[in-house]
Amino acid sequence: MVDAAVRTSQKTEGTSPRIDVKRVEDLLLGTWADTRRTAREMIKDSAFWRDDSLGKDDHRERVLSQLHLLVQNKAVHRAFPKRFGGEENNGANISGFEELVAADPSLQIKAGVQWGLFGSAVLQLGTQEHHDKWLPGIMDLSITGAFAMTEIGHGSDVAAVGTTATFDAETDEFIINTPFRGATKEYLGNAALHGIAATVFAQLITNGVNHGVHCFYVPLRGEDGNDLPGIGREDDGLKGGLNGIDNGRLSFDHVRVPRTNLLNKYGDVDENGVYTSSIDSPGRRFFTMLGTLVQGRVSLDGAASWGSALGLYIAITYATQRRQFDGADGQEVVLLDYGKHQRRLLPRLATTYAQIFAHDEFLQKFDGVFSGRTDTPDDREDLETLAAALKPLSTWHALDTLQEAREACGGAGFMFENRLVGLRQDLDIYVTFEGDNNVLLQLVGKRLLTDFAKQFKDKDAAALAKYAVGQTAGKVFHGAGLRRFGQNIADFGSTARSVENGLRAEQQHELLADRVQQMVADIAGRLRPAGKDKVLGEKLFNENQADLIEAARAHGELLQWEAFTDAVNSIPDEDTRQVLTWLRDLFGLQLIEKHLAWHIINGRLSTQRAAAVSSYIDRLCLRLRPHALDLVNAFGYEPEHVRAPIASGIEQQRQDEARAYYADLEASGEAPVSEKALKKAAKK
Amino acid sequence: MVDAAVRTSQKTEGTSPRIDVKRVEDLLLGTWADTRRTAREMIKDSAFWRDDSLGKDDHRERVLSQLHLLVQNKAVHRAFPKRFGGEENNGANISGFEELVAADPSLQIKAGVQWGLFGSAVLQLGTQEHHDKWLPGIMDLSITGAFAMTEIGHGSDVAAVGTTATFDAETDEFIINTPFRGATKEYLGNAALHGIAATVFAQLITNGVNHGVHCFYVPLRGEDGNDLPGIGREDDGLKGGLNGIDNGRLSFDHVRVPRTNLLNKYGDVDENGVYTSSIDSPGRRFFTMLGTLVQGRVSLDGAASWGSALGLYIAITYATQRRQFDGADGQEVVLLDYGKHQRRLLPRLATTYAQIFAHDEFLQKFDGVFSGRTDTPDDREDLETLAAALKPLSTWHALDTLQEAREACGGAGFMFENRLVGLRQDLDIYVTFEGDNNVLLQLVGKRLLTDFAKQFKDKDAAALAKYAVGQTAGKVFHGAGLRRFGQNIADFGSTARSVENGLRAEQQHELLADRVQQMVADIAGRLRPAGKDKVLGEKLFNENQADLIEAARAHGELLQWEAFTDAVNSIPDEDTRQVLTWLRDLFGLQLIEKHLAWHIINGRLSTQRAAAVSSYIDRLCLRLRPHALDLVNAFGYEPEHVRAPIASGIEQQRQDEARAYYADLEASGEAPVSEKALKKAAKK
Repeated sequence: MVDAAVRTSQKTEGTSPRIDVKRVEDLLLGTWADTRRTAREMIKDSAFWRDDSLGKDDHRERVLSQLHLLVQNKAVHRAFPKRFGGEENNGANISGFEELVAADPSLQIKAGVQWGLFGSAVLQLGTQEHHDKWLPGIMDLSITGAFAMTEIGHGSDVAAVGTTATFDAETDEFIINTPFRGATKEYLGNAALHGIAATVFAQLITNGVNHGVHCFYVPLRGEDGNDLPGIGREDDGLKGGLNGIDNGRLSFDHVRVPRTNLLNKYGDVDENGVYTSSIDSPGRRFFTMLGTLVQGRVSLDGAASWGSALGLYIAITYATQRRQFDGADGQEVVLLDYGKHQRRLLPRLATTYAQIFAHDEFLQKFDGVFSGRTDTPDDREDLETLAAALKPLSTWHALDTLQEAREACGGAGFMFENRLVGLRQDLDIYVTFEGDNNVLLQLVGKRLLTDFAKQFKDKDAAALAKYAVGQTAGKVFHGAGLRRFGQNIADFGSTARSVENGLRAEQQHELLADRVQQMVADIAGRLRPAGKDKVLGEKLFNENQADLIEAARAHGELLQWEAFTDAVNSIPDEDTRQVLTWLRDLFGLQLIEKHLAWHIINGRLSTQRAAAVSSYIDRLCLRLRPHALDLVNAFGYEPEHVRAPIASGIEQQRQDEARAYYADLEASGEAPVSEKALKKAAKK
Repeated sequence: MVDAAVRTSQKTEGTSPRIDVKRVEDLLLGTWADTRRTAREMIKDSAFWRDDSLGKDDHRERVLSQLHLLVQNKAVHRAFPKRFGGEENNGANISGFEELVAADPSLQIKAGVQWGLFGSAVLQLGTQEHHDKWLPGIMDLSITGAFAMTEIGHGSDVAAVGTTATFDAETDEFIINTPFRGATKEYLGNAALHGIAATVFAQLITNGVNHGVHCFYVPLRGEDGNDLPGIGREDDGLKGGLNGIDNGRLSFDHVRVPRTNLLNKYGDVDENGVYTSSIDSPGRRFFTMLGTLVQGRVSLDGAASWGSALGLYIAITYATQRRQFDGADGQEVVLLDYGKHQRRLLPRLATTYAQIFAHDEFLQKFDGVFSGRTDTPDDREDLETLAAALKPLSTWHALDTLQEAREACGGAGFMFENRLVGLRQDLDIYVTFEGDNNVLLQLVGKRLLTDFAKQFKDKDAAALAKYAVGQTAGKVFHGAGLRRFGQNIADFGSTARSVENGLRAEQQHELLADRVQQMVADIAGRLRPAGKDKVLGEKLFNENQADLIEAARAHGELLQWEAFTDAVNSIPDEDTRQVLTWLRDLFGLQLIEKHLAWHIINGRLSTQRAAAVSSYIDRLCLRLRPHALDLVNAFGYEPEHVRAPIASGIEQQRQDEARAYYADLEASGEAPVSEKALKKAAKK
C-alpha cells in the first residue's frame, strides 16, 4: 500500500494542436467550480481518505468520525437555511458533496444519508417547528438519522410501502407499525448502529382513511442510548461495497410518536384526526413529496461521472507508461498506442466528458428550482425527468468504465491500492439505489409517451409526420441554457463529399434526435390498440417495456450530446475547441455505432455510410491519442485525490530503469546473444 | 449472514411441454458428471465455505486449512501419476476442481496455484528426478509453492520476462536474478506467506547465449522457516477479490540453485554448460512449454461458466418470488413476468447453457491431448486456440451475468450474504489472468488469419469466394465430436414463409459462421498491402486489431453455438428437446442481434428480417419464461451450494405473509379506505 500520494510530473507528448488544460478544467468543474476546489482542497487531508486496511467495523467508525470532520470544516451546511448558519445554496451543496467520492464513497454516501436524505426530509417535508427543533442537531451531527423509505418488499414502488402510521386521537399520537416482515425498512444507512432517529415513510391512516405515504420523524433511541420500545434493528452486515456505512433494517412494533412528528408541509392531521393538504390529488401530493428529495439522484449523477473521471485518469496515465510486446522498431510499445487499447479507453473518456457537461446543466436546473428562481410545477417535473434520465446513464457508465479501466491495467488494476476495484465496488449500488436505473428510465419513457401524445391530441395522423426533429430533446433543459440545433438540414446523404462531412455535428444530432422521436412514436403506435383495455394494455406495455427503456436511454444520451456540444461551442481557443470537437464527435459516433442497426433499418443511414462509422471512430481515437493525457489532466485531480501507485509515475520509473539496464548491457558488450538470432545467422 | 443453507421446495408453474430436469442436469454436468457430483457432495461440508466475516488475514489461513482438507478428501490427486497415488485422469481433475468455485473461489484458485500451476510445472516441465523429489510433497501440501511467471513489467508477454538464470559452470549452479524492479515476479499466489518454493520462469543463459524462457525450481525458505539469502518477498495486500489467497511479489538477488533444478523436459544444460533440447526451434520450444500449462485456462472456462450458473440460479429464483408494482388485476407482479426482466436474465441463461456445453467438448479435447490418446502437435495447437477462444468469452460472461443478476435483485443483490457481489469480485481477475482476454482473443485471431492464408496459398482470388461456410468453425473441435451443418442451404430470404422459419438452426449457423469467415477474409485483405514492410504491417495490424479480436470472439461464439446444438440434438425426450431448442435459438438470435448492423451491411440479412430478430427474441423469452425455474434447477445446485438467503424461499414466505395480511384485513372489514378511492367515488 502506498503511504502517501506521490507527486508526479507527467509529460505529454509534444503535439499540435494542444488543448488549454487549465481552461478545460474550468469548463469541467462547471458553475460551482470554486466549491469543488474547496472540497478537493479539504480532502487532500489524509484523514478523509479511505483506509483499505480497516475491516467493516473500523471502517464504519472512521467514516462516522469523518462526518464530524466535515462538520468542523463547514462542508455540510451549504443547503441549509441561513438562520441555522447555512447558505441556502443548493448547487454549491451538491457540487461539494459530489467531490467526496474521491476521498471515500462511503464517506460521500453516509454524508448523503445524514444531510441529503434524513436532513432533507426534515427540511423539505417538515415545517418551521420541525426545523427549529431538529435541524441544528442534524447539522452538527448530534442527531444522526436514518432515512427509512425502502422496505424489503418495496424498493422502487414507494407508494406501496406496508408500514402504517395510524392516528390515535385519544393520545394525539401516530402509531407507527410494521405489519408484516416484508414491510421492514431495509438497506438504511445509519440504521444498524449510529442513527438515533429516523424519517419514516408510512401510510398515513386517520379516521379509517388511508391518505397515502407521508413522512414521520421517529426517535429510535432514548437519552440512555438504548433503543426505544417497539424499535427493531438489524445489521445488514457486509455489502458489495460502501462498507463504511452501517446499513441495516428497522421495524416498528406499534411505536407511538406525537402527532406533530408528522412532517406536515404537504399534508397535516389536526387533533381531531382531520386530514388536510394543500395538494388535493393524492397522486400529485405523493410525487410532490418525493420530488423534494430529488437531490440524491442529482448528486449520484455527478459523483458517478467524477468517479469515472478518476478511473480514466488512472488507467490512461498507466497506459501511457506501461509497455507490452515489441513494436516494429524492436522497442516495447506503450499500451495506449495499441488500437484496441484506444478503443477501450477513449470513447469512455468522451462519454465521461459528455456526462460531466450534462451534469452541470442538470445542476443549474436543480439549483433554479430549489432556489425558487425557476420553480414551477413544470420545472419540477422536468427536473425529475432529467434526474431519471441522467442518473441511470452516468451510474452504469461508471461501473462500465471502472471495470474497463481495471482490465486495461491488468493485474495491477485488481490491486486494491490502485483504487479501481474499490471505486467500482462502492459505486455498484448507485445503479439501483435512489431509484433502480431501469425503473427510472421507464419513468422517462412514460413521460416521453405522454409528451408525444400531447402533441397529437386532436390532430390527425399526418401531424405525426411533421413532429419536429428534436422536439423531445432539449425540452427538459428548458431554461437551463441548452440550445437546439436548426432542424432544416439538407439531406446530407447525397450532398456530403466525405464520410466525415456526413457525420458532423448536425448529422449526429439529427440521427440521435430522430431515433428518440421515432422510437417513441413507434412504441406509442404499438400501445394504441389497448385503448382502455387494462389487461391488453399491460400485455402490450410489457412487450414494449425493453424498447421504452431503450428510448429513454437514447433521450438521455441526446441530452448529454447537446450539453457536450454547447460546452464545446463556448470555448474561444481554437485548438482546444478542435480537440474537444473530436472528442464530442467520438461520443456522438459511438452512440450511433451502438445503434447502427436501428439507423439502417429505419432508413436513417445508408449501409455505406453505416459501414464508415466504425472506421471514423478508429480515426478519431488515433487523432485523440496524443491528447489523452491532457484530457485526463484537465479533470484537475491532484496526487492526494488519485493515490493509485500505478498512476504515480512509478511505472515510468520502472520502464526507464528496464530500458537503461538493457541499453547498458548492450553497451557493455556482455549481453548474451539470443539462440534465435544465432540460428537465424547460421541459416544465412 | 445465514447460518446454514435452508432447504427450499421450489414450485414451477404447471406448463406443457416440461423439461426433464434430471436429464438436463446430466447433460450439463457432462462427461465427468460423477466427479462433479463427488466434488459437490464434498463441499456441502460448511468447512469448505467462504466465511464472509473473516478479514484478509484470517481468510488466508482458512483457505490454507481448506487446502489440507482437500488433501484429506483425496480431491487433488486426480491429475498426478499413479505411482504417487494419482489417477492420471485429467478431465476428471479439472471437473472436480472447477466445482470448488461454489465453495469459495479463493479456495479454487489457491488450489489451482498449488496443484494446477506450481505442481503442474514440476510435473509437465520436469523429469523423473524432479517428480520423485518434489511431487509427493506438493501433493500432500508439505511443499507449498508459488508459480513465478508474471512480472510487474511483463504479464501476457512471457517471452520477454527480465528474470535471468545464468549458468555458472564453476559451481554447477544457476544464478537466478531480478535485474531491475520491473522484473519482479508479481501477483503470485502463495508468494506473500505460504510458499516455501517456487517454479520460476527466467531467461536461461549459458556460455553467453540466451536460450529463452525456462522454468526453475527455486526453494524460498530454509528448514528454519526463514527466507533463504537473496529471496525478496512482498505482500500484494488487499485485492478486488480472492482475498483468501496470499498473492505477493518475489525478487531474486543472485539466488543460486543446483543445475538440476532446471525443469529440463524440453531443454537441458550439462555440467559444461552445453545446452540441448529436443525441440530445435526456440519459438516452438517456448510455446510447447507454455502449452503444457493450458489447464489453467481450461478450468477457468468451466469455473466461470458454473459461476454464471450459480448467479442465475439465485437471480431467477428470486425473480419468481419477489413482486413489484401492481398488474392489471391489482395484484403485484412477479419480477420475471416483466418483459424487461426476462430480457435481462433469459438470454444470459441461454449463453450459460451454451458455455457449459462448449466447455464439456473443450474438456474432452483437453483430456484427449493430456491422456496421450489424441496428442499430436496439431491437437495441441487446436487445444490452445480453443482455450484462447473460450476462456475470454466465459469469464467476461460471468462478470456480466453476475452483475446483471445482482442488479436484478436490487439492494438484496448488493448484500454480501446473497453471494452475487462476492462471486463477481472474486471472478473479476479471471478475465485478465492466465492470459489477458484481449491478448488471448488476438492469438485466436492470428490463428484464424493463418488458417485463412493457408487456404489460399497458390490460389487465385476467386478461390476466396468459394471458401466454404463453416470452414473455420468446427475445425478446432476436430475429434471432439462436434459436427458441422450442411453448407448448401437454399436462400432462405426468399423462400421462408415466416420470420421464425427464416431464423432457425441452419440460418443461425450460416449467419454466425459466415460472419467469422467474412471478417477474417476482410481483415486479411486489409493487412495484405503490408507485405514484408514491418512498419506498415504494424500500422495496419493496429488499425485492424479491434476487428481481429471481434472476429475471434465471433469464432468462439460459433463454437459455443455448435456445442449447444449438438447437446440439444442428443436429447431423446421431445418436450425437453423443444424447450432447449428455444433456449439455443435465444442464444443464437441474441448473437445475431448483437451484430445486426454487420449482418445487414454485409448483405446477410434484409432490413425486414433484421427488424424481426428482436421481436423474435422477445417471443422466445416469453415462451421460456415458464421453464426458467426448471432450467436453473437443472444446474443441480443444492442449498449448501447456493447459500443465498434470497434464493432460499424466504422471499416467497414474506410475499405470502404480506398477501395474507392484506386479505385478512380486507375480510375483517376494518381495512382503511384509500383517499384516492374516496375521491374517485365522490366524482361519480
